[in-house]
Amino acid sequence: MLKDQPKEKHFTIFYGDTGYSYESIMRPYFKGSSGITIEDPYIRASHQIQNFIRLCETIVRHSTIRKINLVTSFDENTNVSEMRDSLDELKQSLLEIDIVLDIKLDQNLHDREIRLENGWTIKIGRGLDFYQKPNSWFELGVNDLSLRKCLETKVDIFKE
Amino acid sequence: MLKDQPKEKHFTIFYGDTGYSYESIMRPYFKGSSGITIEDPYIRASHQIQNFIRLCETIVRHSTIRKINLVTSFDENTNVSEMRDSLDELKQSLLEIDIVLDIKLDQNLHDREIRLENGWTIKIGRGLDFYQKPNSWFELGVNDLSLRKCLETKVDIFKE
Repeated sequence: MLKDQPKEKHFTIFYGDTGYSYESIMRPYFKGSSGITIEDPYIRASHQIQNFIRLCETIVRHSTIRKINLVTSFDENTNVSEMRDSLDELKQSLLEIDIVLDIKLDQNLHDREIRLENGWTIKIGRGLDFYQKPNSWFELGVNDLSLRKCLETKVDIFKE
Repeated sequence: MLKDQPKEKHFTIFYGDTGYSYESIMRPYFKGSSGITIEDPYIRASHQIQNFIRLCETIVRHSTIRKINLVTSFDENTNVSEMRDSLDELKQSLLEIDIVLDIKLDQNLHDREIRLENGWTIKIGRGLDFYQKPNSWFELGVNDLSLRKCLETKVDIFKE
């Protein structure tokens, strides 16, 4: 049975790498978890919220998670009311399939960390925002992030 | 060996259905094909070209296809120069991974049809554009089309 268990991992995504999606990195660790907590201070701007929606889509398709906790932050440049509206629309669409999204704002938050209720922790140095901006919005990788070039970042996955 | 062969299929996608992506519909039929021809008069507007990019991303990830032929059309409302620029950017990004995209414009084209070089034909009544527009750009399914609600259309998949 042990061979089916996901493993502790520590690796670097290098600048220009492709082949990384939230699914490919996180899916093995979702197994048996009913809840997930995402701490990431940068789920504010529109493209950052889109990244978070992609993570939620991955969770919906590939896990049995029913409760998502998001802790994020903002600063004086954030349009907080727009940010809240966008996240509320996402919350509503999750609620329609019986998944609860709880959102907390914490201005002291700095580190990025994703914790599964089953004990696994996934730390990505850059959080969800580790992709390069495409050169054009009509190239491969604009929709499928596993074809998008990455920025450099480290990934640590371990169980407490 | 026959049980591994993809099968002839005729089915309806109903209005409001979810669970359909280009991958889920077409992937089994890509096997053993090095070329694909997409005839679809509506690869013009920006969101239609994005659909076509999604199909190309699916081809890149899940097939050994090296040659993509697109036959599409335009009318007096089409910004043909913008359309050409967008498709050229896609063509360039495919060329970087050694896949050739050939684009032809045919004003007499009406029907939608996708033909694989291995003999399979995939006809979707609405072509690639069988998804509902989301109510919000911050809901599940904005990125992952398998979570997006569909319009009604028929699908016929057969081998000549």
